[in-house]
Parts: sequence; C-alpha cells; structure tokens
Amino acid sequence: LVTLKSAISRFADRTLKIGADDPRKVVHSIKVGLALTLVSIFYYTRPLYDGVGGTSMWAILTVVVVFEFTVGGSLYKGFNRAIATTTAGALAFGIHWLARKSGETSEHIIIGTSVFIITSAATFFRFVPSIKAKFDYGMMIFVLTFNLISTSSYRVVNLIALAQNRVSTITLGVCITLIVCIVVFPVWAGEDLHLLIIRNMGKLADSIEATVFEYFEEETSQTKDASSQNSQGFKCVLNSKQSEDSLANLARWEPSHGPFSFRHPWSQYLKIGAAMRHCAYCIEALYGCIHSEIQATVPVKKHLSNVCTNLSLECSKVLKEAANSIKTMKASSAIEVMVADMNYAVEGVHGALRTLPQAAGAAADHSTDQEKEQVISTAPVLLLMEALPLVSVSSLLIEISARIEEVVD
Amino acid sequence: LVTLKSAISRFADRTLKIGADDPRKVVHSIKVGLALTLVSIFYYTRPLYDGVGGTSMWAILTVVVVFEFTVGGSLYKGFNRAIATTTAGALAFGIHWLARKSGETSEHIIIGTSVFIITSAATFFRFVPSIKAKFDYGMMIFVLTFNLISTSSYRVVNLIALAQNRVSTITLGVCITLIVCIVVFPVWAGEDLHLLIIRNMGKLADSIEATVFEYFEEETSQTKDASSQNSQGFKCVLNSKQSEDSLANLARWEPSHGPFSFRHPWSQYLKIGAAMRHCAYCIEALYGCIHSEIQATVPVKKHLSNVCTNLSLECSKVLKEAANSIKTMKASSAIEVMVADMNYAVEGVHGALRTLPQAAGAAADHSTDQEKEQVISTAPVLLLMEALPLVSVSSLLIEISARIEEVVD
Repeated sequence: LVTLKSAISRFADRTLKIGADDPRKVVHSIKVGLALTLVSIFYYTRPLYDGVGGTSMWAILTVVVVFEFTVGGSLYKGFNRAIATTTAGALAFGIHWLARKSGETSEHIIIGTSVFIITSAATFFRFVPSIKAKFDYGMMIFVLTFNLISTSSYRVVNLIALAQNRVSTITLGVCITLIVCIVVFPVWAGEDLHLLIIRNMGKLADSIEATVFEYFEEETSQTKDASSQNSQGFKCVLNSKQSEDSLANLARWEPSHGPFSFRHPWSQYLKIGAAMRHCAYCIEALYGCIHSEIQATVPVKKHLSNVCTNLSLECSKVLKEAANSIKTMKASSAIEVMVADMNYAVEGVHGALRTLPQAAGAAADHSTDQEKEQVISTAPVLLLMEALPLVSVSSLLIEISARIEEVVD
Repeated sequence: LVTLKSAISRFADRTLKIGADDPRKVVHSIKVGLALTLVSIFYYTRPLYDGVGGTSMWAILTVVVVFEFTVGGSLYKGFNRAIATTTAGALAFGIHWLARKSGETSEHIIIGTSVFIITSAATFFRFVPSIKAKFDYGMMIFVLTFNLISTSSYRVVNLIALAQNRVSTITLGVCITLIVCIVVFPVWAGEDLHLLIIRNMGKLADSIEATVFEYFEEETSQTKDASSQNSQGFKCVLNSKQSEDSLANLARWEPSHGPFSFRHPWSQYLKIGAAMRHCAYCIEALYGCIHSEIQATVPVKKHLSNVCTNLSLECSKVLKEAANSIKTMKASSAIEVMVADMNYAVEGVHGALRTLPQAAGAAADHSTDQEKEQVISTAPVLLLMEALPLVSVSSLLIEISARIEEVVD
C-alpha cells in the first residue's frame, strides 16, 4: 500500500511538472474541454436535431479527432477531413447511382467490388511518401466516408439527407475546433519550429565552448558541473530531427501569423537543422575523444590551450550570431567578420600544431616513451582541428540559409 | 499537358516502385479492402440491424481506424479502443445517473461541468510520456465516448440500448480487423524490429570496412562506386531512432509469434540501437576526416595502411558475428575470440603510430614543410584510433545484450 501511495505521488509530481514546464499544455487541455462543452451546448439548445445520437456524434467526433496541440495540426486535419468527406461522398453517390441503374443483383456486386477496390487503392496510396506527408489523414477519412455511404446505401432510402447531415455536423465540428484553437491562446507550429532551431543553435554554441573549456581547464568542481551540463547540449540537437520534421510539416498549413507569412520558407529550417546535426556529430566525436583514457601531457596541453579555446569561442560566437540573425530575421552584417575571425583562429591552431614538436621537444626529454605519449596526445586536438572545417562549413550554411530567409521574408 | 503527363507517369512509376520494394504494403491494402468488404457483407446479410446508418457506422469506423500495418499496431489500437469505450461508457452512465437524481436544472449543469472537467483532464494526461507511449489512442477514444454518451443523454431515452449498440458494433469491428490482420499474411512489428537491427548492424560493419578501405586503396573507379555505397550505410543507422522506438512500442503488444515470446525483451533492441548510433557518429566523423582536403603523404599512408585495414576488418567481423548471434538468438562463442583479435589489432595500430616518426623520418627529408604535413596527416588515422575504443565498447555492449537475450529466450 505504501509503495502504491508513493508511486501515485511520484506520478502526480511528474504530471504537475509537465504542466509547470509547459503551461501551454494545460491551456490546450482546457481548450479541448471548452470546445467539447460548446458542441454539447449547441446540441442541447438546437431542438432541430432529432436526437438519434447518430447526428451529434459527428460533431463530437470531429472535435475530438481534429483538435491538435498546434494550429497547424488542427488546420491540417480539419482541411483534410472536409475535403476527404466531400470527395468520398460524391464518389460514393456516383457509384450508388450507377449501381441502382443496373438492377437489383448487379447493384450489390458493383457496390461490393467498388468498396474493395477503392479501399485497397486508397490504403495503398497512404504509403506514397508525398501523400503520406500531406494527406495521410485525408486518405483515411476518404476511406471511412466512402465505406459509410456505400454501406448505408443498401438500406437507407434518403441517402442525401444522411450525407447532408454528416457534412453539416462535420462543418460545425471543424468550425468550433478552429475558432477555439486559433482564438484562445493559439500554439503555432511555425513559431515552435523557429524557437526550437534558435534554442538548439544556442545549445550547440554552448556545447562547443564548454567541451573545449572543460578539456583545457583545471578541474574545479563547481564550474565543472555547470559546464558539463552545457557540454551535453548537443545531444538535444542529435535527436531533434523527428520533431523538426513534423513541426515543419504542420507549419506549412498555418496562415500568416506574427512575423511569419503564409509561404514562409519552412524547408530552410530543416536544412539548418540538418547542418546543425552535422555539427553535433562532430562534437559528439570530439566529446568522446576528450573523455577517453588517452590524455595529452601537460606541456602539450598548455601549448595548444590558448588557440583551441580561442577557436571554440569564435565558433560559438558565429553560431550565436547566426541564432540571433534568425531570431530577428535580419541578415547580420557582423557575421561575415566573425566567420573571418573564426577562419583566422583555425589558422592559429594550424600554426600551433606546426610548432608543436619543437615546443614539446624543448619542454621534455627525447625518450621514446615521451615521444609516443606526445604523438598520441595530439589526437583529440587534431580531431578538434579536423572537426572545425566542418563547423565552419556548416556555419556558412547557416549563414546562407539566414540570408535566403531574409530575401524571402 | 505534356508536363502533366510526365508528372503523372513519374508519380505512377514511383508508386509502383513502392509496391515492388515492399509487396507487404500491397498485401496490407488488399487486407484492409477485405476487412471492410466483410463488414459491409455482414451488415447486408444481417437484417437485424435497423438500417439507420448510425449503427453500421461504428463497425466501419473501427475497422478503418484500428487496421494498422503491423499486428502490434492493430492490437494496440483495438485493445485501447475496447477498454476506453467500456470505461468511458461506465463513467458517463454513472454521472448521468447521479445527475438525473438531482433534478432537471442541476442535471444540465452537472453534465456540462463533468464534460468540461473530464475532457480537459484526459487531454492533459495525454501529454504524460508514459501514458502517451502506451495509451494515447485510448485516451482519445475515452474522451470521445464519454462526450458522446453524455451529450446523447440529454435527448436519448434508451441510453442503455445506444451503449449496447455501440459496444457490439465496435466489438464486431475489432474482431474482424484482428482476424484479417493476424490470419492473412501478418506483418509483425517485433520481427520487423529484429530484422531492422540486424540489417543496420550489417550496414555498420560494411561502412567501417568500406570507409577505411576507400581511404587507403588506390582509386579504381569501378570498386570505388560499390564501396562508396557501402560506406554510406551508416547514415541509415543515424536516422533509425524513430522507427526503432515505434516498432519496439508496438512489438510489446504482440502475442508470441515465431521465435519471439510474448515478453521478449524488446527494450534490449533499443539499447543495441543506441549503441549502434553511437558507433555511427564516430564513423560519420571519420568519414568527414577522410574526405577532408588535408590528406596524408604516401609513405605515412603506407606505413599505417596494413594495421588500419586489419583493424577495420576485425571490427566489421565482430559486428557481423554479433548480428549473426542476434539473428540466430544464440550467444556466439566465437565472438569473444573476435573481440580479443580486435583488441589485438588496436594494439597493432598503437604500435605502428609509435614507430611512425622513425619510419616517416627514414623515408623523407627533414624539412619543416614535410614535418608539418606529417603531423597533420596523422589526423584521420589518429581519429580512427580514437574512434575504435568506442567501437569496441559498443560491440561489447552489443555482445552483452545478445547474451541477455539468450538468457531470456
């Protein structure tokens, strides 16, 4: 009993934390409750409805199914649902009309065959990537509506009334959903994507800085904690592909809002995201090397400490500036200077590496053991150097995309 | 018109290719068509149904919504739908009964308030990760059913009949779906996951081998093409997290099938996947270095060529053996020997690096230019060396998980 109690309290704690971390989720829940209460009030106050249960059903169903967390999601589903219901209804009517003309027995055969063929075809089309991305839900509703009307046509005489009823209740549901979703504290997928990219870029910048800093700095425990948290930031970037893709997909459906126009180049964000992931892979490898057992000797570290720290700072600056330019949606004039600084810092590291053998040689004796250690010790640093061209390439990419954005906005 | 025609033919080509690549998708489409035809026949031949359209609706809706590509997906949705409908129905009845007892006016207030509160709460719970993973769909159906019955209770007198009708049609839909899904060419999520992991492990092994081979080999164009395709294999591993997660999630719902028991340790597969991704990050960094502009001089390459190629072969062997042991679900006795061989090969690379300065010194003159090039040239190789401890760590991890599996099976 005690373990059950503690399990429940832990669950409650975690649940409350979710609400505290993102109050929009609480607001979303209240919005759904509001929309459904509206439907139920609407149903209650309109004595026109004949109260079979079958009629109110579609409005409720539409609200529950269409109401998504983001505006883009709701629009996508609402739009798909509306279009699919209409086309499927029209098609089912057409086939029904044809079948009716051809006599009693063949009617059933025609309808049965068409149900089978059209359902199979539509289900197969859901696997086509371009359709899956934009109309997956619509295809499902198409299948649903087509089957519903075809099957009902066996028995229901007044098919038109059934279809009209369905269309009007679905329209009601979609309207209530969209109004509540857009008017009451809207959550825009596009804005989320925008902020996610900016946040990830900042994390990446902190990661580069913290990882290199951690390597060269003496270990002082209190700064270590903070910096090691920073240096883990790139892991978020590694796993963000899925959420970026889905947000960009939904953002396409959203109307103009805030600083974003309707045809905002959302695919640019995906390119930036891919470039950032490419950076993050490098940092991951660098991080692995820095935490491996094989470590550099102190003189070697000292020799390279300055140039490497400098380079990491420059990289981080470029990324932060790029993040800033995305935030304000203005091409930054400072970024080119910063990229030049960064390239200069890369040259510095190259230079330091060139003079490394002499420097190390002067500091230490020439035993083979020492030499061996030395060669091995350069590994992480060399890796860093190798990683940096990639960083500069991708920051250039980021810069380019920022500029494209600026042009389109 | 010509462009439209070519667009359509391109679309058709791509669509046919999807079917040819994975015939199971075509089979799936036919299965869905079959299930819906069954429902429609069932509806047609049972004159018990009173043909309002509202009754057949739930069976059709259930089939369309519950029928997923994998058995696990269908079971997950079917189970969620059944449980959620029952509990939500019971709750709605309870509240309805309470409300009815408390008089005309307060009845509406009680029902309205309960709709609002329960809908909001259930929607919020969908954000809790542990509920989202297993019962997301169930929560949605819970909200739907609860609202439906609550709203209908305003008008429908015979609420019990409505609920019974709903339960029986949903049961019918779920049964037909599951029977068709499991009996006719089933697609098991667990098997898919199993094969995905094995395939990815093989690709990883090929990647390591091909990347290193490509670096050291003279460029002969025909082998180059094949090997460069192999060396791209790790990119699949990088992006497989999402599909692994969802497959493992669905596999949990599947009954015992083939060599997999009901409580097969699917989470082990996720751990193996994570370890493989970790490897793939390293290979990605290695790949970047190998294709960077800074290249080693020929004597240095020659000196390291043998040991590095050897090491990559050993790594690849270990991975392939691990993949094989997962495939047969037996702990391989050979794998420990192979890991020892691999560690020995790592020592070989260490040794070659130690003697590198002498070897290079003997082959070339001691100009600073040469020296500089030499130091830089070691970068990719050193990186390889750095990457290998990670590879060996993760192959150990793989080995461990393979063994755990063996114990549980």
